[in-house]
Amino acid sequence: MRYKLNYLIFVFILFFASVSQATEPLPSWNDTQAKQRIIQFVKKVTDKNSADYVPPEERIAAFDNDGTLWAEKPVFFQIAFAFDRIKALAPEHPEWNNQQPFKAILENDHATLEKLGQKGILEILAVTHAGMTTTDFNNIVKEWIKTAKHPQKHVPYTDLVYQPMIELLEYLRANEFVTFIVSGGGVDFMRAWTEKSYGVPPQQVVGSSAKVKFEMKDGKPILMRLPEIFFIDDKTGKPEGIHRHIGRQPIMAFGNSDGDFEMLEWTTLRSDRPSLAMIVHHDDAEREWAYDRHDPLAKLDVALDAAKKNNWTVISMKNDWKTIFAKP
Amino acid sequence: MRYKLNYLIFVFILFFASVSQATEPLPSWNDTQAKQRIIQFVKKVTDKNSADYVPPEERIAAFDNDGTLWAEKPVFFQIAFAFDRIKALAPEHPEWNNQQPFKAILENDHATLEKLGQKGILEILAVTHAGMTTTDFNNIVKEWIKTAKHPQKHVPYTDLVYQPMIELLEYLRANEFVTFIVSGGGVDFMRAWTEKSYGVPPQQVVGSSAKVKFEMKDGKPILMRLPEIFFIDDKTGKPEGIHRHIGRQPIMAFGNSDGDFEMLEWTTLRSDRPSLAMIVHHDDAEREWAYDRHDPLAKLDVALDAAKKNNWTVISMKNDWKTIFAKP
Repeated sequence: MRYKLNYLIFVFILFFASVSQATEPLPSWNDTQAKQRIIQFVKKVTDKNSADYVPPEERIAAFDNDGTLWAEKPVFFQIAFAFDRIKALAPEHPEWNNQQPFKAILENDHATLEKLGQKGILEILAVTHAGMTTTDFNNIVKEWIKTAKHPQKHVPYTDLVYQPMIELLEYLRANEFVTFIVSGGGVDFMRAWTEKSYGVPPQQVVGSSAKVKFEMKDGKPILMRLPEIFFIDDKTGKPEGIHRHIGRQPIMAFGNSDGDFEMLEWTTLRSDRPSLAMIVHHDDAEREWAYDRHDPLAKLDVALDAAKKNNWTVISMKNDWKTIFAKP
Repeated sequence: MRYKLNYLIFVFILFFASVSQATEPLPSWNDTQAKQRIIQFVKKVTDKNSADYVPPEERIAAFDNDGTLWAEKPVFFQIAFAFDRIKALAPEHPEWNNQQPFKAILENDHATLEKLGQKGILEILAVTHAGMTTTDFNNIVKEWIKTAKHPQKHVPYTDLVYQPMIELLEYLRANEFVTFIVSGGGVDFMRAWTEKSYGVPPQQVVGSSAKVKFEMKDGKPILMRLPEIFFIDDKTGKPEGIHRHIGRQPIMAFGNSDGDFEMLEWTTLRSDRPSLAMIVHHDDAEREWAYDRHDPLAKLDVALDAAKKNNWTVISMKNDWKTIFAKP
């Protein structure tokens, strides 16, 4: 009896093991160098017999969001959110028809909007991202992400997340990595939808943030969003934000612009652990957009030059990805 | 064959289920109301058929550290670290023999130290917590926590973590809770040892922090710790820090002083989810220390008064805990 039970348990385990092996990882990636490097890296850091083995608690992977996990054209989607919000609030603010920067948004006056200085941006943020509780802001973003459509692709913004990156996030988590988003975008803007779209829970989202203020209102605690910036999670802010939030250096990082340069340096220029960094290169004008060195919002210049020197793989969206969007 | 296999799998599962049931949770807790409330709460929020069911991703539990997870007498252990550090550095600083606040530390002059104002505290922090890289600071704390001894108990500080709370952390994680530390203490001070002592990884530690600055030095990226405070995670800072770091309201919170008052309010004064908060009450002068309302460092006054009104359980260390310390 004992022999039979052991045997059947063995068969049972084998059956499940073979099911999980049968699923090939990263199906939306072409079988090019980028995919091969990822798989080789994951294999060696998860192999207990490898000199490059990394224990699960140190398997931290950091992903930029805009342009790395979802598209960012014609403008960062959080800017589209802010502009949509201004338009939604406009009926209560007739004065905006004659007041910049609101007038330019309401009239789709791109020439004026492109020249918006810091003052104009802060005025828009104050109206669209502050003056409400954190709960209310979360609900506003959730409603927008459910209903808003991309102006050129005419689909919900969350349809424009990159299918190969979704598969990469899942593949890493299946290998006991903890996947973090590390973005210049607003942390509370992202948290309203990253769990559903990426499987990344709020506590694994690092981003820019506004000051908040704890208050009791009618016997209930609230956090009011203030029109003041608390932290900008971009450029040198990325390694600083990673340290403050995660407290551990990632062993993998993915970005797409110079805003990610220092994060990639922080991840790879270390000798105590193996590491891998990659840059998503927007070179597919047909299926997505093509831009790099001179893009006004997402310049990829210094980081592109540093890629060869630092052994960072440049992912060609055109050649390395079979599919681009999660819902094509 | 098929019938037999199913049957054996059933037996197999039953065997493991009975093994896990045999381990009674929270063995170091007496069978009093506190323990019963914790178990009842965990049962209802993990029972899919309960109206109070909470999905795993929302099972956030927040724990204060000093006085809640480990002892805090005669002074916060991070202060002991700073004083030990001043003494270790003193040979390189002969001028400290005649310079306050260093002189008072070197001479164990408690009367002067008790009157240290903010300026003195910042001078001590600048010397002991800044001016080095984050990696160096981490190594300094790791070395201290391994070698330093508590002045009265004569054991390493990490022996003074509370065994009942260690069991509680493990019990919650076994029930798919994510356990966070939310402390007024320095986040980088705690992260050097919380994973080993509490099973809480660095990314689940929320605390006070210093500013850090990213730099390249000899081709390597470093983060320098600056002598400037970035965030104080205490009182109203606790719900603010929870929001910024976790992005979700906890459903359980544990504290021991008025510094935790707003965190307990933020956790429990909500109607969308069931919640549970408790206060560790230091009422065991024999096995630990006894203090509350008038303690100069860890006053428990407003929160103690609010406990009854808000249905927060006051844990009596004397009556509710069989054992106090992890290594008695």
